[in-house]
Amino acid sequence: MLRREFSVAILLAGLAVPPSAHAQTEPLASWRDGVVKRSIAEFVARTTTEGSAQFVAVPERVAVFDNDGTLWTEQPVYFQLAFALDRVRTLAPRHPEWKEREPYKSILAGDMAGVMASGEKGLMEIVAETHSGMTTDEFAKDVIDWLASARHPRFKRPYTDLVYQPMLELLAFLRAHRFKTFIVSGGGVEFMRPWVEGVYGIPPEQVVGSSLVAKFVMQQPDKPVLMKEPRVEFIDDGSGKPVGINRFIGRRPVFAFGNSDGDQQMLEWTAAGDGARFMGLVHHTDAEREYAYDRQSHIGKFDAAWDEGVRRHWTIVDMKADWTVIFPFERK
Amino acid sequence: MLRREFSVAILLAGLAVPPSAHAQTEPLASWRDGVVKRSIAEFVARTTTEGSAQFVAVPERVAVFDNDGTLWTEQPVYFQLAFALDRVRTLAPRHPEWKEREPYKSILAGDMAGVMASGEKGLMEIVAETHSGMTTDEFAKDVIDWLASARHPRFKRPYTDLVYQPMLELLAFLRAHRFKTFIVSGGGVEFMRPWVEGVYGIPPEQVVGSSLVAKFVMQQPDKPVLMKEPRVEFIDDGSGKPVGINRFIGRRPVFAFGNSDGDQQMLEWTAAGDGARFMGLVHHTDAEREYAYDRQSHIGKFDAAWDEGVRRHWTIVDMKADWTVIFPFERK
Repeated sequence: MLRREFSVAILLAGLAVPPSAHAQTEPLASWRDGVVKRSIAEFVARTTTEGSAQFVAVPERVAVFDNDGTLWTEQPVYFQLAFALDRVRTLAPRHPEWKEREPYKSILAGDMAGVMASGEKGLMEIVAETHSGMTTDEFAKDVIDWLASARHPRFKRPYTDLVYQPMLELLAFLRAHRFKTFIVSGGGVEFMRPWVEGVYGIPPEQVVGSSLVAKFVMQQPDKPVLMKEPRVEFIDDGSGKPVGINRFIGRRPVFAFGNSDGDQQMLEWTAAGDGARFMGLVHHTDAEREYAYDRQSHIGKFDAAWDEGVRRHWTIVDMKADWTVIFPFERK
Repeated sequence: MLRREFSVAILLAGLAVPPSAHAQTEPLASWRDGVVKRSIAEFVARTTTEGSAQFVAVPERVAVFDNDGTLWTEQPVYFQLAFALDRVRTLAPRHPEWKEREPYKSILAGDMAGVMASGEKGLMEIVAETHSGMTTDEFAKDVIDWLASARHPRFKRPYTDLVYQPMLELLAFLRAHRFKTFIVSGGGVEFMRPWVEGVYGIPPEQVVGSSLVAKFVMQQPDKPVLMKEPRVEFIDDGSGKPVGINRFIGRRPVFAFGNSDGDQQMLEWTAAGDGARFMGLVHHTDAEREYAYDRQSHIGKFDAAWDEGVRRHWTIVDMKADWTVIFPFERK
């Protein structure tokens, strides 16, 4: 009953009469009209309209987003892994032993199958090795420098161009309705923080992610630094995501968006709260404009989360059908 | 030069003409006029006045505060320890073995010297034991229930009455100038989050603290919980504070306030940034209205941080001299 009532209200309150000056064009312009777009708009209307039975107070309007595959592309490899592989190539002259040691040998030989064969343990070693031994400030600079020069192998564009236009609109739409938007990603928190504010409008303090241990060291008198060590501190993936949300945010989200099995527990945690909840999943179905993958994919495997999403009537985005535009550069 | 110029400007911009409707009375009313009050007001004027050489952009206005001894009283024992001791007494009937085992034996006998003799290890065990074995939601409720009934042994008031009025004014003053205020405390993050929003106006997502491990568990179908385990995950004290700031906030603060050696590295980390910085320390000098302690104190030891603060000209609050009112209830 309520849903029906608000499906009208939302056209007035949510879309046609945007509440902020920033949203003078249609706020979800790159979302095709249909069940998915309506489920988002109705949820926002129901939870932000005073007097609604499902009204959510402003401080409780916490929205969490996975990053890889949800806000930007994650193929052919997670972009952070592309960064790490480039660093291995850069650092190789200082590590002659890498020529004979996996997974470095495969990386230097350009053998991606060999790299992937090293499994999660090998990939973690690459990340730990290439993301440590410098200060947090130096690492942030390395990330920025890399993003300025690196290009995606298929799209031949900076990686930060490969963010999803519909999700940028969704972030802005939620913020216009006074939701606080957070990233909750399996990616490294220090890999994301240097650029997410400029790209997504999400400040560093609203980013939850995986991390290596950092150590406070007095490098010169009165000049402390934080040195990154090659030890994993926290993996913000799978059941680590609710743990990370609890630790960093300390409130249960009312709105969560992911795209893979690594996001399943984050959505379960969101769903288990009282009152109105929104759980969304991006299904990558567009091989032409982006990529198509799900149950069998090594990266962004979408299998158990898909089944649960269907069973529990979560909102599942069919990228090909629901998004009129994938990347911002398509609009130019 | 700049300081002198702004000491005038601040009377106009900072104090006499508050920028927000919330601050229509004098914003630092409980701070006695003098060097300390002026150092705060001048810093805020210099960093928030457009065109100032030391102007700080709004997103970078991060202010961090220690909690115990900086925002509220920490004597005769940290209030979280008082909570833990009360829980030991409550849970004792279920643990007959405690009668013979330290530190529980001393707690149950009311022998505080014996409890303290168990050292940091004993205190950590008490916290781990009394803060685990329940869900995060259950724990939050336990904290709220305890605060509603427990009374401070000397002041005979709820612990949350024992917050410092001048610091409440400082938090409001900073927020009125668009600083984002964070707590960075050695105390447990889950002990603080249930009440800090109501008491300090600091939302749960702006609290950094120590934590135990939490584990995601599916308690019933589709009903996950986070179970608190008796294992320390992170100690947000001493050199852990810059680490916690980096991990949770991801920006270096421009303003930091503490009161003990456990805050020293947080202030050093703040001081090491570029541009204008404010480092403040509360010196507990008022045995009559609150407590007087410093170099020799077991709780809130203020020794190395004091020496460094003097050497580096950080702002040191003499509680007795600088605060006209200590607690909000004195004003009624």
